[in-house]
Amino acid sequence: MKKVLVKNIGMLATPVGKTAHRGEEQGKIKITKDAWVLMEDGVIAALGEGAAPEAADAERIDAGGCLVTPGLVDAHTHLIFGGWRQNELGLKLHGASYLDIQNAGGGIQSTTNATRGATEEELAAKAEKALNEMLRFGTTTCEAKSGYGLATEHELKALRVIRDLDERHPVDLVATFMGAHLVPAEYKQNREEYVRLVCEEMMPRVREQGIAKFCDVFCEADTFTVEESRRILEAGLKYGLRPKIHADEIEAIGGSQLAGELGAISAEHLIVCPKEGIESMAKGGTIACLLPATSFNLGAVFAPARDMVNAGVPVAMATDFNPGSCPCLNMQFVINLGCLKYKLTPEEVLTAVTLNAAAAIDRADRVGSVEPGKLGDLVIWDAPDLDYICYRVGSNLAKTVIKKGAVV
Amino acid sequence: MKKVLVKNIGMLATPVGKTAHRGEEQGKIKITKDAWVLMEDGVIAALGEGAAPEAADAERIDAGGCLVTPGLVDAHTHLIFGGWRQNELGLKLHGASYLDIQNAGGGIQSTTNATRGATEEELAAKAEKALNEMLRFGTTTCEAKSGYGLATEHELKALRVIRDLDERHPVDLVATFMGAHLVPAEYKQNREEYVRLVCEEMMPRVREQGIAKFCDVFCEADTFTVEESRRILEAGLKYGLRPKIHADEIEAIGGSQLAGELGAISAEHLIVCPKEGIESMAKGGTIACLLPATSFNLGAVFAPARDMVNAGVPVAMATDFNPGSCPCLNMQFVINLGCLKYKLTPEEVLTAVTLNAAAAIDRADRVGSVEPGKLGDLVIWDAPDLDYICYRVGSNLAKTVIKKGAVV
Repeated sequence: MKKVLVKNIGMLATPVGKTAHRGEEQGKIKITKDAWVLMEDGVIAALGEGAAPEAADAERIDAGGCLVTPGLVDAHTHLIFGGWRQNELGLKLHGASYLDIQNAGGGIQSTTNATRGATEEELAAKAEKALNEMLRFGTTTCEAKSGYGLATEHELKALRVIRDLDERHPVDLVATFMGAHLVPAEYKQNREEYVRLVCEEMMPRVREQGIAKFCDVFCEADTFTVEESRRILEAGLKYGLRPKIHADEIEAIGGSQLAGELGAISAEHLIVCPKEGIESMAKGGTIACLLPATSFNLGAVFAPARDMVNAGVPVAMATDFNPGSCPCLNMQFVINLGCLKYKLTPEEVLTAVTLNAAAAIDRADRVGSVEPGKLGDLVIWDAPDLDYICYRVGSNLAKTVIKKGAVV
Repeated sequence: MKKVLVKNIGMLATPVGKTAHRGEEQGKIKITKDAWVLMEDGVIAALGEGAAPEAADAERIDAGGCLVTPGLVDAHTHLIFGGWRQNELGLKLHGASYLDIQNAGGGIQSTTNATRGATEEELAAKAEKALNEMLRFGTTTCEAKSGYGLATEHELKALRVIRDLDERHPVDLVATFMGAHLVPAEYKQNREEYVRLVCEEMMPRVREQGIAKFCDVFCEADTFTVEESRRILEAGLKYGLRPKIHADEIEAIGGSQLAGELGAISAEHLIVCPKEGIESMAKGGTIACLLPATSFNLGAVFAPARDMVNAGVPVAMATDFNPGSCPCLNMQFVINLGCLKYKLTPEEVLTAVTLNAAAAIDRADRVGSVEPGKLGDLVIWDAPDLDYICYRVGSNLAKTVIKKGAVV
């Protein structure tokens, strides 16, 4: 049995429990000063305050009096894609319109073309580089979506890349099928047929191969209507895929209401989420998975996080890493934005990027808090306390990242 | 003679010249695809396009087809300070008012207390850690201000720390005396006496020890009036210290107008700079040193950078690294904000963080561009082109940093 003891922890800060925290609970975390954590075979075995146990047979890691938190959970990424789209920023700043960029071959469709053109190995190499970096910033569990393939073989290809990376990379990956990310160019005149393809051709294959846990849909004025989204998510449920939904990112067309109605595990973005949507999510037990770095990149407003907490909707936060609206994979920046832009407290923010994020991808039984029985996923921070990691912007403060009891 | 050849540069992007660039010139940079740079004894000796020269006696660095730019110049930091102030963020988010925080011992005065209480060695160790990180993010030259001592011995102590770090650290430091950062608590009832102290006691000592190039003053409603600022900066000129001024950060009380009148080398912040201030700076040849990460942290508006460029004011950008309004030392984040928030083009942004920043601290003869005769300060980026480093947020894209011809 491999034992690892982290001792001399100046502040251990963690939510407690195996389910999402909502309302006042979101800000109730457990703070232990002068703590230690013992892990056995990658799982947390014990923890306590004051002098660490002898544990003579354990590898010992000195936290140097620093802050320790659970490993961060990034509950929303579009990790698998070909190419980048940096040229669109330059074009926009030189005065190009959205249409100019589309005409120059830009937008999601350009990423789809690059993704279709890439081999599994190429996609994996690119995603692995991103995962390495995420890990260095403290992310130990990560959701990843398909959704740039938009054709059966390419959606399956992306999901296979996620499965293979999950097997060989320290970061645990959780896969979401998102064939309904966009109606691809070749179906623009026949959207009905594309929805059919997603539901009747892609989903059975995804189910058969067992390579996704969730089904996500981009419910927005220019992509999938509420009725199409409902049809897609209900089809997903038939194939054992729990619903997630991109809702209210640009226009509130009813996505968050649908999320609550369907009892979706999470709804994403929610930048312009109306009161009715918040109520529906609270009632349906849906977690709000907020993506503040996307608001930052788009120059958009920020989701009404405080209203959600007040209404009893559990709030999680994630990066939305993707090559278009959010080329950012750094959860520490998300933490900063949670305080600076959402005005959540440091305690609420910690819950949002650990326990509630884990719950948003159905992993709260295994990760998201530092408790006996959960995975030994920890971050030792170059920081004395929780406020500090919320306050310092632009530095990588993760000093040591521990995944399943091993320094990575 | 030590020769270093950087070859296989996919894109070399640099402004050209030894003076600040203004107006349309700000966005005119030189782009060379497939380039090389040869350095001799830390100075750029030659550069070109296509096949690199043999230079058999040179150390060779392969840029791997990546982007290369001049080393970044951070033209505005408050590098020397004791303590941090992370607790103020937590207090604010839990509902504390500005007054509550002051009463709890917060604000600049608390940093002054911590700075006065720290030894030279402690201040140096703390600043050195920050400089190491800045260097990893691509900063090769850095301005540093005193201004948390606010008493003769402590202002001199801070300036000595800067001088000593400049001698032993790879990052070149340029010192600014800022005794007029705040009227310290003990002079609140006698501000006149504090201004006298700055001008008649501190400045002669600073001059005598030769440990600062510039004199800066915080011209703002709650700190120093325009008339006090004028008096302080004119006194500085007598002692050979060129004027800089913190102006229009919160209220426009006339600081930017004063900057132009005095021919200040730079004016800082300028968040709410009025038209008259821009005109005055254009006329006086003052560089606008903009600090977008401070606007970001404060949740404030962003300085009217485009108006300044249009009016022929050279725009530089810097971090403003300090423990209160901007605990960020990462110039890459400043680059992101230059595009996303100021809407400057990538080319204008590059000029702002290299040549114009160098000019803002009177170093444009030595750094800020990749040209023969300038220091061999380069960043090799994990990026194919200039757009990419503007677009990716939250990752450290500096792959290799070269200072005076040596990989650091």
